[in-house]
Amino acid sequence: MVGKQRDAKILDCTIRDGGLVNGWDFSTEFVRELYQSLSRAGVDYMEIGYKNSPKLHHVPNAGPWAYLTEELIRSTIGEKTATKLSALVDIGRVDEHDIVPRSESFLDLIRVACYIKDVDKGIELAQTFHDLGYETSLNIMAVSHARENDLNEALEILNGSSIDVVYVVDSFGSLVQRDIEYLVAKFQKFAPKKTLGIHTHNNLQLAFANTLTGIDMGVVYLDSSVYGMGRAAGNCPTELLVGHLHNARYDVRPLLDIISRQFIPLRDKVEWGYTIPYAITGLLDEHPRTAMALRASAEKDEYLAFYEKLTTVETHGAHL
Amino acid sequence: MVGKQRDAKILDCTIRDGGLVNGWDFSTEFVRELYQSLSRAGVDYMEIGYKNSPKLHHVPNAGPWAYLTEELIRSTIGEKTATKLSALVDIGRVDEHDIVPRSESFLDLIRVACYIKDVDKGIELAQTFHDLGYETSLNIMAVSHARENDLNEALEILNGSSIDVVYVVDSFGSLVQRDIEYLVAKFQKFAPKKTLGIHTHNNLQLAFANTLTGIDMGVVYLDSSVYGMGRAAGNCPTELLVGHLHNARYDVRPLLDIISRQFIPLRDKVEWGYTIPYAITGLLDEHPRTAMALRASAEKDEYLAFYEKLTTVETHGAHL
Repeated sequence: MVGKQRDAKILDCTIRDGGLVNGWDFSTEFVRELYQSLSRAGVDYMEIGYKNSPKLHHVPNAGPWAYLTEELIRSTIGEKTATKLSALVDIGRVDEHDIVPRSESFLDLIRVACYIKDVDKGIELAQTFHDLGYETSLNIMAVSHARENDLNEALEILNGSSIDVVYVVDSFGSLVQRDIEYLVAKFQKFAPKKTLGIHTHNNLQLAFANTLTGIDMGVVYLDSSVYGMGRAAGNCPTELLVGHLHNARYDVRPLLDIISRQFIPLRDKVEWGYTIPYAITGLLDEHPRTAMALRASAEKDEYLAFYEKLTTVETHGAHL
Repeated sequence: MVGKQRDAKILDCTIRDGGLVNGWDFSTEFVRELYQSLSRAGVDYMEIGYKNSPKLHHVPNAGPWAYLTEELIRSTIGEKTATKLSALVDIGRVDEHDIVPRSESFLDLIRVACYIKDVDKGIELAQTFHDLGYETSLNIMAVSHARENDLNEALEILNGSSIDVVYVVDSFGSLVQRDIEYLVAKFQKFAPKKTLGIHTHNNLQLAFANTLTGIDMGVVYLDSSVYGMGRAAGNCPTELLVGHLHNARYDVRPLLDIISRQFIPLRDKVEWGYTIPYAITGLLDEHPRTAMALRASAEKDEYLAFYEKLTTVETHGAHL
C-alpha cells in the first residue's frame, strides 16, 4: 500500500474540467496562482485546459483555456516548477498543426479523450503527439456504457501502441468501488504494458473513494480538482488526495489557502458538487446533461418530477 | 453481493444525529412526515431521537427528540408501519426507570452508545433493555482511537452477551475503505456470533463508500440520514443507499420528494455536510468539535490558520 501510494501521480484538472462549469472564465492571475499553489503542494501535473481548435470546435463565449496557445501558457506560467503541464484534446476537434514539438512547448503531457468506438483514431492522434516528444494518455470516456468485448479489444490494441497512460474514466459518476476493481483488473489483463490512470466524478459521493480503490489496485495517475471543481457533481478533491497520501513531497497547506481565498468565493457564483439531480443521473448511469439543464432552470429542486421524467417510459407518439 | 444486499437493513438516524445540528428543533409534523416517507421508501428503522433523561443530562434549549417520551412518540407517529423505531441512549445519561417494557412501547430497538472503556457498563445497560423485550445494539464510538488489544478484548466480551447488534462507529469520519475492511474483519473474528452494523461520517466524502465496503464485508445494519443530515460533515445519505441497493422493497421516490420540500429549505438555515474544516479533522483523525466551533465563528473559512493551529505543537507554557 505504501509503495503504491509512493508511485501515485496527482493530475489536477481544475482549469480544464472546472472550466466546464464556468465556461473557462478564469483570469490569468487565478491560473498562475493555482499553478503556484499546486507546485507548493507537490502536485505532479496541472491540466491547464483544452488544446482544441476554435476553427474545428466553437464553444460560444468560451474563455481562453478552452483553446490553449503556447503564448497564453508561457505568459501565464512564467517559470515552470517541478509540476508538469498537460492539455486535453478531443478527437476531431484538434488541429495537429497547432502543436509544436515538446522541446518548444511548456506542455509535457497531451491527453486524448475519446469514446471506445474512436479508439483507433485516438491512438493515431496520440502517436502524432508521441512523435513530437510528448508524454501521452488515452482517456476512454463513458466506460460504464462500453460493451465488454469492444472494451477488451480496444485495450488489446492500446497495449501495442506507444501511448504511455490509459485512463479509466467514470464520466457519469455511476461506478462504485467494486466496479472500479473489476474495470482496473480488466485493463491490467488486456493492456498489461500500460500505466493506468483514473478520472472520477462525484455524483454518488464516491469520487475520492473510487480513486482510493484505484490506488489500491495499482493505478498511478490520479485525476482530481481543487475543492472538487469539475463538471456537474465535480471530481475527486485534490485536497483530500494530497492530505491523505503519505508522501513527503505532498503538502496540503497551499491548497487550504487557495480554497479559502479563491474557491469559496467562486463557489458562491457558480455551482458544482453533489446535488440530488446529479445523484439521480449517477444512479441511473446516465450523462449528467439533463441534470445540468435542471440545475440551470427554475425547477432546479424538483427532484421527484425530474426522476419520474427520466424513468417513465414515454409512450405517446412512439411507434409501437 | 446480491445476497448481502438483500440482508441489509437501513437505519435512518436523521432526527437523532441530525438533531445534533439543529438542537432537535424538528416539529412534530416534520418527524411524522419523515416517518411516513421512510416507510414508503422501505427503510427498515427510523431512529426518532435520544432516550436520555433531562435529569441526568441537560442540554440547554434541546428540542423534545433529545428526551423521548412514549407519549411524544405515540402522538407523533400515530400508526406504525413496517418501519421499526429506535432510540439511542448514552451510558450514565439514561434513567432505566424511564423505559417501559417493549410490549407497552412504540420503540423496537434501543441502541447504547459508549466508548470502549465503558463497554462493560454498556453491556449491562443493554441487558436491561434486552430483558424488557427490546432489540439492542452496542455502538462502540471513536473506534479509530481504540487500542487494538482493548478492542479485541471488548469484542470477546460482547460476543458472549445478549446484545443483538454491534456497531463499527467512525465518529471522526477518518476511516478509509481499507480501515473498514480491517475493522469489520476484526469484529467478525472476535465477535463471530454478533450481527454487525456500521455508522459513518462524511468528513472525507467516504460515508457512503465505507458503508458499501461494510455491505461487501457482510455488515447488516447500515446507519444513514436523509440528505446526509448529521453532526458536522454528516452521515451516509439515506437516498444513496435506498437508490443503490437492489431490493424490491426500497423506493427512492418518497425521499426525493421530502428532500425537495423539507431538507433543501432546512439546509439553507442550518449547516451540515462536507466542508474543509471537517475534512481537516477527518484527515487528522480528531473529534470535529474544533471544526464545529470554527464553522460557528467569523473565521469559518480560514482553513490554513485552522490547520496550523491543530498541527502546531504548542510549546509556550508547557513543562519541558
